[in-house]
Amino acid sequence: MELQKSPLAPASFPDMPTVDGVQLSTRACGIKYQGRTDVLLMAFDEGSTIGGVLTKSLTRSAPVECCQQHLKFGQVRAIVVNSGNANAFTGRLGSESVSRTVEATATELGCTKESVFIASTGVIGEPLPDERLTSALGDLKSDLSPDSWKAAAEAIMTTDTFAKGATVTTQIDGKTVTINGIAKGSGMIAPDMATMLSFVATDAALSSAAVQSLISLGSDLSFNAITVDSDTSTSDTVLLCATGKAGNSIYQDINAPELADFVSALNGLLKDLAHQVVRDGEGASKFVSISVSGAESDTAARKIGLAIANSPLVKTAVAGEDANWGRVVMAVGKSGEYADRDKLSIAMGGVTIAKDGQRVDGFDEGPVAEHMKGQDIEISVDVGVGSGNATVWTCDLTHGYIEINADYRS
Amino acid sequence: MELQKSPLAPASFPDMPTVDGVQLSTRACGIKYQGRTDVLLMAFDEGSTIGGVLTKSLTRSAPVECCQQHLKFGQVRAIVVNSGNANAFTGRLGSESVSRTVEATATELGCTKESVFIASTGVIGEPLPDERLTSALGDLKSDLSPDSWKAAAEAIMTTDTFAKGATVTTQIDGKTVTINGIAKGSGMIAPDMATMLSFVATDAALSSAAVQSLISLGSDLSFNAITVDSDTSTSDTVLLCATGKAGNSIYQDINAPELADFVSALNGLLKDLAHQVVRDGEGASKFVSISVSGAESDTAARKIGLAIANSPLVKTAVAGEDANWGRVVMAVGKSGEYADRDKLSIAMGGVTIAKDGQRVDGFDEGPVAEHMKGQDIEISVDVGVGSGNATVWTCDLTHGYIEINADYRS
Repeated sequence: MELQKSPLAPASFPDMPTVDGVQLSTRACGIKYQGRTDVLLMAFDEGSTIGGVLTKSLTRSAPVECCQQHLKFGQVRAIVVNSGNANAFTGRLGSESVSRTVEATATELGCTKESVFIASTGVIGEPLPDERLTSALGDLKSDLSPDSWKAAAEAIMTTDTFAKGATVTTQIDGKTVTINGIAKGSGMIAPDMATMLSFVATDAALSSAAVQSLISLGSDLSFNAITVDSDTSTSDTVLLCATGKAGNSIYQDINAPELADFVSALNGLLKDLAHQVVRDGEGASKFVSISVSGAESDTAARKIGLAIANSPLVKTAVAGEDANWGRVVMAVGKSGEYADRDKLSIAMGGVTIAKDGQRVDGFDEGPVAEHMKGQDIEISVDVGVGSGNATVWTCDLTHGYIEINADYRS
Repeated sequence: MELQKSPLAPASFPDMPTVDGVQLSTRACGIKYQGRTDVLLMAFDEGSTIGGVLTKSLTRSAPVECCQQHLKFGQVRAIVVNSGNANAFTGRLGSESVSRTVEATATELGCTKESVFIASTGVIGEPLPDERLTSALGDLKSDLSPDSWKAAAEAIMTTDTFAKGATVTTQIDGKTVTINGIAKGSGMIAPDMATMLSFVATDAALSSAAVQSLISLGSDLSFNAITVDSDTSTSDTVLLCATGKAGNSIYQDINAPELADFVSALNGLLKDLAHQVVRDGEGASKFVSISVSGAESDTAARKIGLAIANSPLVKTAVAGEDANWGRVVMAVGKSGEYADRDKLSIAMGGVTIAKDGQRVDGFDEGPVAEHMKGQDIEISVDVGVGSGNATVWTCDLTHGYIEINADYRS
């Protein structure tokens, strides 16, 4: 099946600068795909720190378990990623394959095993032919270059219709700091299941503890606030690495005022990457922002937002350009979070449709109907019981989703 | 939009006998639909008891709130149902409309207000023109007849493609007892949201407490074990009424051996009605039974089952006749319930595909592929950690769902 580029894709891949202390190389190892790069090696200079956020799935893959173990040490020298085979639900064979890859990489780069991280995406339940990968490590090492960010973003794609990258420059202590990130999104290809992966690197100097806190908090506002179809991959992995080459002072407290610009730049970059994942959601024709306010807590607001974002009835209404606020009410009700039906208000495209639990008197559907025809849809809900708020992002549910996930058979 | 009859519909509506003490009448009141019956009055002889299960939605409708209040009294003389307008999210106007309908019905039938129950289904957020209904109560009363079950099933339909009914005869104390039930399903019609309603009546003699326990337990195994698209209506209502005309002794304990046949017959009827709702799911082309075993508890098993049944990726795989067990693994993982990845086994159509956390060696896809082409699909999962089990039912996710919910605009 030839997938067409998403209509919501950014105009072009950004110009990515180098990040001091980071090198990348890619290679076509024929793990599943023929004639395209499917392995990425990211190498980091000594002293680099790492933090990460992994899928909460209880059937997580062997590579995810490896990352979980190695994150405890907080040091990184290499990330090895393959696309085409997720090495998930592969039992003992899967763990052995990860061990062999870790060991071969550590030997090749002369680093500890605990500083090697593995991520895999692609078919589930098939043993990973890891020798195709490990036998290429020598070549991957010699090809390492600080400039290969676009190639890296392409090598980790599965059914993504465009490569996803973002870059930002900011300052800590007056030192210029760069952050680069790549991601791959939630495309599925029968009988496989794809995955959300993202790798972000900066030359800032940050302790392992700070890197972990930053990526945990940042993911909450980005990768953990998006949904395409409510399905959670067994392999989702987000890693943030910091090489320290920028030479700024290290702050243990991520709330230190000196880090404020950096945190804001990082969170902006994570949100950008997360939005790109949604914009490449299967069959997506509209990008939907859902803001919830007036909830009992921020957590409750996010749960309500995700209930709306995951509702097939809301998503099909958006696809149909239908300002169907009744379906939004329904989704609020099923979230399980406290809401006051008689204080609920709902707006779309900034126009209030319902207020105090009923439709606004003399509501004029015209401007809202116009908004629904656009590519960027905004839904705001106030549930009227507190001051918690959250924003989540999703795409619509279209025939394209059914085509990708039901019509095509391998 | 003309909806085609579901390919999963039963061959015909069953021959429904009368239930002593129950009379029905229907009428076209033009509440929204023109030229078709849209109001149902069910009348019960004095001494009838009632129990019910209502939507857990926190944005439930005014009629649901009325049922909730009146169920505390456990007595029933009338159920008034209208289709076309759900009277949901209508604020103060909605409650007033329900009060007027209750009062007019109580006056017309000469009964207490607490013995009148209301259910509404159809558009959300529009005030219900209840005078069209109340002004017809006189005619509805004079038309009451014990034979109108099929007409009743038709009057409560919204976008259902077939009328849903079931009947069963059993015995208590050697007395013959009849149970009749009707239901309407989850069809949606833009910009409205439809609802699951079911009304079941028996001539058995049962205390209010017993009726309530019976419908609570029975719904857990039927209406609360089905899902079409994970969306919960603001109006879901299931009521069970018992007239006592069969003259059996009253048993307070629903586990009394004398009630065993009745309970089994009732649960079978509820399951039949629930399955009919799924078989009329929007766009459904396949009926899917999902059995989960080996969970920590029956509750955990049901949660895992519903995670599988609600997964868009699993539902589209079924639509595509693809035995995609990787998506089942994913859904188990996201359920949040404990499972042992390395003990998980999955079967489709009775053929084991994966066992002990990996694909069965030399697995032959042939027989499973054949099974997936049928209309009735069976998925079994053992999660390998305990002895909890549950079965849930759903339908597949097809282009038909998108057509009904996105393509059509009112």
